[in-house]
Amino acid sequence: MRIGAIEAGGTKFVCGIGNERGEIRDSISFATEHPEITLDKVISYFKDKQVDAIGIGSFGPIDIRHGSPTYGYVTTTPKPGWENYDFLGTLRREFDVPYGWDTDVNAAAFGEATWGAAKGLSSCLYYTIGTGIGIGVYSEGKLVHGLVHPEGGHVLPRRHPNDDFAGICPYHGDCLEGMAAGPAIEARWTLKGHELPVDHPAWEIEAFYLAQSITGAILLNSPEKVILGGGVMQQSQLFPLIRDAVKENLNGYVSASEILDHIDEYIVPPGLGQQAGLCGALALGLAALRTTK
Amino acid sequence: MRIGAIEAGGTKFVCGIGNERGEIRDSISFATEHPEITLDKVISYFKDKQVDAIGIGSFGPIDIRHGSPTYGYVTTTPKPGWENYDFLGTLRREFDVPYGWDTDVNAAAFGEATWGAAKGLSSCLYYTIGTGIGIGVYSEGKLVHGLVHPEGGHVLPRRHPNDDFAGICPYHGDCLEGMAAGPAIEARWTLKGHELPVDHPAWEIEAFYLAQSITGAILLNSPEKVILGGGVMQQSQLFPLIRDAVKENLNGYVSASEILDHIDEYIVPPGLGQQAGLCGALALGLAALRTTK
Repeated sequence: MRIGAIEAGGTKFVCGIGNERGEIRDSISFATEHPEITLDKVISYFKDKQVDAIGIGSFGPIDIRHGSPTYGYVTTTPKPGWENYDFLGTLRREFDVPYGWDTDVNAAAFGEATWGAAKGLSSCLYYTIGTGIGIGVYSEGKLVHGLVHPEGGHVLPRRHPNDDFAGICPYHGDCLEGMAAGPAIEARWTLKGHELPVDHPAWEIEAFYLAQSITGAILLNSPEKVILGGGVMQQSQLFPLIRDAVKENLNGYVSASEILDHIDEYIVPPGLGQQAGLCGALALGLAALRTTK
Repeated sequence: MRIGAIEAGGTKFVCGIGNERGEIRDSISFATEHPEITLDKVISYFKDKQVDAIGIGSFGPIDIRHGSPTYGYVTTTPKPGWENYDFLGTLRREFDVPYGWDTDVNAAAFGEATWGAAKGLSSCLYYTIGTGIGIGVYSEGKLVHGLVHPEGGHVLPRRHPNDDFAGICPYHGDCLEGMAAGPAIEARWTLKGHELPVDHPAWEIEAFYLAQSITGAILLNSPEKVILGGGVMQQSQLFPLIRDAVKENLNGYVSASEILDHIDEYIVPPGLGQQAGLCGALALGLAALRTTK
């Protein structure tokens, strides 16, 4: 079985070929440019690969509502050329195979539930904390879509008492993404995250905001696992800070041993590591193939 | 078809008999006392009613994890006698029928999705704002359970700039329930909600807190409908205040006509009115019957 996988990020595309065990055999990566240029590269990559299906985890917002006339489109992005671009249709015209299509973070959540940190569970949340903040939601064995799709990076957290940073989200100012994504860290401290010492007060503030969102998401959706990926989470000193802050926020209210006694195994990095996104797209492609069979 | 329905609230129980069209033919209501006394009344009511199934929407926290040794129990409540009480087992010993078992708010969400304001949709949120605040979550055609079950009333909102009320949640102080449930309104203003004039500043503050939680829940789960029930929402002046605050919070970010153009039909009272809870339990019972057939 040869499944094509596309991790379509706002800054970088990764394409690969994998199998039903989540093994990536081959992959290629290139910068995200104007869609025609970018999709040409995608098409060239898959041209002679004889894939049985293709899964795509895309930056958004995207249209994932079955039956919508713009299903498969990237919708309202400010990225030049991508607004109202028929991403899925462009590929369909080249390769007549089943397609899986979802957000990058939903794809990663699905990959983690299939082969990674949430394997065997029927629910998890997947956070990516990098250039932006996105949250994939997997509940009761299904990826959550609803009206549009989850956009959990834009919740409005309480302000840290020692933080007077205004926030940089163009829509909300001091929403989670505006306060805690990579560019917010850099704007607040005039240094990139990886240039700050591990004991810098930045990390306690960062954990404060992320933990608030995680606390809220645990209370609302009761996920069986919370997975934190993305460039900012390469700062592994964040994990214990976040876990402590989540426990403090919940204050024993959610009476589950997974949180009270084993939070180190509850809030975790991606089991698939840097391949969470690409494996997620692979899992979407595999699911699409199985649905059509 | 005769389905038994139990709306098991912390202060009041309602039992009824209904059919597959969501019609309640008969019902009875009594105060929630010690579990033995309360369940005796429940059993007496259903004794000669020949029900084909029973659905229960219960106050919590409760154990709804299939396969758990305490499945069907009320778990950590401070209500005298109810902690670790085998609610479902007590009924099973009397009536050998299929049972539906979920939280009161999940039941109400399911009832609304079956016959009410979210009929035909595959997702909705059901808020009850009364003695406490609870949120039922229905996503992709399923009630969300996860690790325990949703406990969305305890998220931590930002403070309203004109509000110095400390909050009364014993776990979290100024969480949503601690700031915006009925007892919080009474403690803040020394008057019950229904005693405050409709143009009192209390309502703008109340809407501020509820709208924050609703905004966060829309961003995380992207529900197709948000339904607001419970005693506090009898103050119908809250609806336009909440809708305006949610739109202001989102600031156009979620690009869906349901929110941008039709928010009056998006954030709504229960379609089943005061019967949302009991009809929800009925829907659970009906689903249990269909699963076993």
